[in-house]
Amino acid sequence: MISGYNFVGFEKKASGEKKLHAFSTVLKNDLPGEFSVATEQEIHEAITKATVAFENYRQTSVAERADFLDAIAEEIMQLGDALIERAHLESGLPEARITGERGRTVGQLKLFASLLRDGSYVEAIIDTALPERKPLPRSDLRRMMLPIGPVAVFAASNFPLAFSTAGGDTASALAAGCPVVVKAHSSHLGTNEMVATAIIRAAQKCNMPDGVFSSLVGEGALLGHQLVKHPQIKAVGFTGSFRGGMALLKAAVNERDEPIPVYAEMSSINPVLVLPGKIKQDIAAVASQLSASITLGVGQFCTNPGLLFVIKDENTGAFVQNLAQALQGVLPATMLNKTICAAYYKERQQLLSQPGVEAVWAGDEGHDDYKGSAVLAQTTAANFIQNSGLQNEVFGPSSLVVLCEDEIELRSALQSLHGQLTGTVLGTADDVKRFQAYIDILVARVGRIIYNGVPTGVEVSHAMMHGGPFPATTFAHFTSVGTEAIKRFLRPVCYQDCPQEFLPDALKDENLLRIMRKLNGEFTKEAVQQMEVVPQ
Amino acid sequence: MISGYNFVGFEKKASGEKKLHAFSTVLKNDLPGEFSVATEQEIHEAITKATVAFENYRQTSVAERADFLDAIAEEIMQLGDALIERAHLESGLPEARITGERGRTVGQLKLFASLLRDGSYVEAIIDTALPERKPLPRSDLRRMMLPIGPVAVFAASNFPLAFSTAGGDTASALAAGCPVVVKAHSSHLGTNEMVATAIIRAAQKCNMPDGVFSSLVGEGALLGHQLVKHPQIKAVGFTGSFRGGMALLKAAVNERDEPIPVYAEMSSINPVLVLPGKIKQDIAAVASQLSASITLGVGQFCTNPGLLFVIKDENTGAFVQNLAQALQGVLPATMLNKTICAAYYKERQQLLSQPGVEAVWAGDEGHDDYKGSAVLAQTTAANFIQNSGLQNEVFGPSSLVVLCEDEIELRSALQSLHGQLTGTVLGTADDVKRFQAYIDILVARVGRIIYNGVPTGVEVSHAMMHGGPFPATTFAHFTSVGTEAIKRFLRPVCYQDCPQEFLPDALKDENLLRIMRKLNGEFTKEAVQQMEVVPQ
Repeated sequence: MISGYNFVGFEKKASGEKKLHAFSTVLKNDLPGEFSVATEQEIHEAITKATVAFENYRQTSVAERADFLDAIAEEIMQLGDALIERAHLESGLPEARITGERGRTVGQLKLFASLLRDGSYVEAIIDTALPERKPLPRSDLRRMMLPIGPVAVFAASNFPLAFSTAGGDTASALAAGCPVVVKAHSSHLGTNEMVATAIIRAAQKCNMPDGVFSSLVGEGALLGHQLVKHPQIKAVGFTGSFRGGMALLKAAVNERDEPIPVYAEMSSINPVLVLPGKIKQDIAAVASQLSASITLGVGQFCTNPGLLFVIKDENTGAFVQNLAQALQGVLPATMLNKTICAAYYKERQQLLSQPGVEAVWAGDEGHDDYKGSAVLAQTTAANFIQNSGLQNEVFGPSSLVVLCEDEIELRSALQSLHGQLTGTVLGTADDVKRFQAYIDILVARVGRIIYNGVPTGVEVSHAMMHGGPFPATTFAHFTSVGTEAIKRFLRPVCYQDCPQEFLPDALKDENLLRIMRKLNGEFTKEAVQQMEVVPQ
Repeated sequence: MISGYNFVGFEKKASGEKKLHAFSTVLKNDLPGEFSVATEQEIHEAITKATVAFENYRQTSVAERADFLDAIAEEIMQLGDALIERAHLESGLPEARITGERGRTVGQLKLFASLLRDGSYVEAIIDTALPERKPLPRSDLRRMMLPIGPVAVFAASNFPLAFSTAGGDTASALAAGCPVVVKAHSSHLGTNEMVATAIIRAAQKCNMPDGVFSSLVGEGALLGHQLVKHPQIKAVGFTGSFRGGMALLKAAVNERDEPIPVYAEMSSINPVLVLPGKIKQDIAAVASQLSASITLGVGQFCTNPGLLFVIKDENTGAFVQNLAQALQGVLPATMLNKTICAAYYKERQQLLSQPGVEAVWAGDEGHDDYKGSAVLAQTTAANFIQNSGLQNEVFGPSSLVVLCEDEIELRSALQSLHGQLTGTVLGTADDVKRFQAYIDILVARVGRIIYNGVPTGVEVSHAMMHGGPFPATTFAHFTSVGTEAIKRFLRPVCYQDCPQEFLPDALKDENLLRIMRKLNGEFTKEAVQQMEVVPQ
């Protein structure tokens, strides 16, 4: 069933001699399938096909692309339990989680389809001509967003479905009108092949051009480098390590004639402000809420709460002990792959070995069973402010309590924070009022601020912002989750004095698409009323 | 009257020993004023002040910032004729042009003020909570754009007012809520000082924080490098040479811990598709329209039409001759500065010395009078496709005719085009219909497509796109002219389950600001109706 081919557009290719295997941390052996590493020729062919496909794909209507996305969703569901099982065995994530993630992936595709059918995402802006204006007349100016070209998408280790082959990056790029070349993640090669097959089937059923989607297998850094350097790739979507993201960003600027945007979501430790009133109110509840979030998915979330700011008072000791106990009660669980498991124990060891950092509780190291056990460390705010190494991400079920002597220390600690995907406030109404200025410091450093919830769990919706200041991402202007993610793959074009018949539908006088437009500075869905030229 | 100081926030400083002078290409001597090169200490102070100012400035209301922008406009007008005269002498641009540019600069500030008063620019998006949703409830999610932090703005040589000290970059950054540190252009140091004084006066009158604006003098590349490398600068706005823009982009990625966006508008030769029907219709009119655009402002516009595609037919020879004659009739005029004038003659010589390129007409070289004369060159499409050096910008009144043997050659030539700010179509209705596929190739490579007009002349409005694919800019997603330019300096933040009283006004249930918002996927200015919780 698993062929091990690369998908070079609609063609399956395996001309390379190098093969990869999919190791299961659940079964502790290789799964069926021998995956052919894409040759330079195959990579070039896939990108060339994407470039040719773009000429047609960018001309497809929003309705055609919406149908294509819906068809992908349907084909993914058609893969049935086999997909769930393979993704579970490859990622070590429980089947229930994979099933949920499939729902999210399919829902995401459908949400982008609905965004296209609504059509307003093109941000049409029309300034009508002012032929009588003095000293100079104004031309008719009409602007809308158009797709930028072929996009390279890097599948992420921790979401074999929702951030991978048909994940948010792929869905938003395809929605925008950009062909996609996916770099499969070596941790879930079989899952990639199944999903890629579904996308190709949908593309063929919907008469999309050959090359609108390709999927390539390779050794991580090498294939990534080949993709980002290729002159016909116009943008990169990446979720992964800081090192990986930065390598892509630098290659995109230094190793290409034409720099391209690299949207890399990389490193975040997601600080939580655990305020005194909230702790006092119910120590056990706060501890249990945080423990669940720290260990969710064995801590392998970009939004894992890795940093807890606490102002020392009479309840601090009890809170930290409660949290340690709660973490102790969570059984170690299988991590995504060997490398991530080894890196986790190494990173947590590095954290614990920093001066002034002590382990409140540290679970046993998983040896050859690839299981991650939780760790809770603590340090002082003075220490935290001084040592920026304490802001390195530990990818796994780990969190660091930062004990602040007083509000002044809290302020300094917050001010020293690097950019983050999220910041969380756990506080009573009184807490939130009292600490407003501190929360504000946090807001200036994050992409999303959460009140009395946990950062894990990222809603796919219109208002979501999954991004944030560096090093959380390479570009704080954009989100990789939610409908606004489409903006990464669009650029504005202005039509000046273009005859009506040659304008794109979104910009024609009569608003046939019924989209929201900005007309002479006012938002409206009305048609443009052309002033009649009165003969003199 | 001209002090030669740097403006470090509200303080005037001149502690450096190095001095610069303002040379006038009109008078051919130095103008009054000795300008102190900012010391490293002064640079650091200006940026530190901007960082501190940001804490307050980002909290100002849209009304307060709008008043500030209006006040800057008023203070600039208060400078009166002295500003016009100084800018004329420093730039060599005629007083009438400078007067027009002042109108544009002031109008631009007021347009951003009106954008702020409208308020919808924050792109508020609200997804209300779905507490009953299965399998998981949805949180209340509210997203809006917030300012990113201190911005370094590089004044441009060719627009001493509209793209300089109080130009589009400054206006859009200040509108966004970002403090600005301007690098004065060494070509118009006195103009910079006068306008900086106006901005400081407005800031003080409007009680804006010290540090909201600074202006520094320095030797171009060195000061630029110091600014872009400073850790507290969060973005750069630049209009200038390809070399300058690329140096900033690379420094922003390679020489900082935190990469920042560099919005550089650099190099564009603005191709024009001169279609056969149009030429046949009125050779003289087309030639005269193009000649005027090529020589406007001595060709010193980013949008100067430097490339003319023509399909060879019986009228081609006459068209080229007519254009050469028209150019011959335009008197050489004073260029912006010595360096630009020397570079112009060097670049045009490089163009003319390329194999297969011939001069149709070339005006005399200006020797010590800093005047630029026009040049018209021609080459074949085959030559153009083969030699990408023919796409290098010649900054001045220069244009290259590319003669295409047939439509197939035209297609290839268009496909070989680098990214451009603009593309222009000169064609009859029949031409436009017949060449639609070719125009479409052009659209894919430009930021603005113009029908039967000229690319010079950039309207400051909502629908304007002054930007485009590389090398026209470093980032095709953004414009540097028009209200959308504000987006460069904003980033989204999502508030999850934030209590009403702590939400920014733009996101509160009752839409007090009366802005357009996206509420559960629909655009509306209505308030959010909270569902009443019915007690069970």
